[in-house]
Amino acid sequence: MDNLPHLDLLIEAFRHLPGVGQKSAERMAYSVLKMNKDDVLAFSNALEKVTTSIHTCPICGQYTEDEKCNTCSDPTRDHSICVVVSDQKDVLSFSRIENFNGVFHILGGVLSASSGVSIHDLNVDSLFQRIEKEHIEEVIIATNPTIEGETTALYLARLLEKFPVKTTRLGYGLPMGGHLDYADALTLKKALAGRTNMKEEKE
Amino acid sequence: MDNLPHLDLLIEAFRHLPGVGQKSAERMAYSVLKMNKDDVLAFSNALEKVTTSIHTCPICGQYTEDEKCNTCSDPTRDHSICVVVSDQKDVLSFSRIENFNGVFHILGGVLSASSGVSIHDLNVDSLFQRIEKEHIEEVIIATNPTIEGETTALYLARLLEKFPVKTTRLGYGLPMGGHLDYADALTLKKALAGRTNMKEEKE
Repeated sequence: MDNLPHLDLLIEAFRHLPGVGQKSAERMAYSVLKMNKDDVLAFSNALEKVTTSIHTCPICGQYTEDEKCNTCSDPTRDHSICVVVSDQKDVLSFSRIENFNGVFHILGGVLSASSGVSIHDLNVDSLFQRIEKEHIEEVIIATNPTIEGETTALYLARLLEKFPVKTTRLGYGLPMGGHLDYADALTLKKALAGRTNMKEEKE
Repeated sequence: MDNLPHLDLLIEAFRHLPGVGQKSAERMAYSVLKMNKDDVLAFSNALEKVTTSIHTCPICGQYTEDEKCNTCSDPTRDHSICVVVSDQKDVLSFSRIENFNGVFHILGGVLSASSGVSIHDLNVDSLFQRIEKEHIEEVIIATNPTIEGETTALYLARLLEKFPVKTTRLGYGLPMGGHLDYADALTLKKALAGRTNMKEEKE
């Protein structure tokens, strides 16, 4: 009702976040007005700091505040196994599982005819250089199981044929905790194709 | 994976927004990293400005950047009709309908035994003062149709009995665009009780 230009700007800013519509943005902006002032200033400061101090690692493309990211500069990690993902935030999922000790490489997108993303727009050349320089033995392609992610994986796998590396792809199948009656046909087909022997675990 | 303290702070800040869980907060924070730097700084600035420049109107309790809010300082509005709402953002809904030209009063909450909110925690005294000072003729109680909102409305209506004002409550019934088979029993009961004559519209 009132003329609140700063609040309108804030609503507009929230609207640009993923998954936030007009109503949610309004609710968020109004909640900020009820927050402790120090918390809001810390929020504002975090936004500013994130955009000024975080950049991508020149080796793998992950976000970092240092010269190189923690993964690339960590000598205890297994640099011979490299997981290739499309986006920086995909690395977060790997950080949640234990026992994975390899390194990462961020493509920075997926091949997409509709969005006009070609192989030259992805960080593949730097991956090829890393294979030789860091003696990578296995490249695990972990793009999303979508049409574009699949296309990118297949294309990249073909490009990798001329390098002395093993190229693998994450397994497909039923998600843990999922229900069979909710599984779509394609997932079920993939789960069937990827079935494992229960007497003797597949290596 | 990496040690990104500022990003963690930002994720934490997003998590404090209404309706935002860990996953959404991560997605939002990562989207900030892909935004144009100027947009992020504008976002950060809007947050800071909102918390430093917006305060509540001393008359009605709406948010404003000026001394009094636009509604209270607008002589073209009908100051004899006052809509009482529990929260500032409820006023937004009224701003979306045309033809409403009255003023507002923000209670700043609803009566709640579980949260320990009593009538003394709500801005009712200032409403009583306004009734006399601004010659309010009708108070439309527009708290939410929840148990707590209803209790507050009934309690407030009883307190208003000693003032020379007409006290009304927003009508109940089926929401426009809703489906009868999705309507709960209570809503249907209210809709039935509030049925209107189709031959002659109820005044």
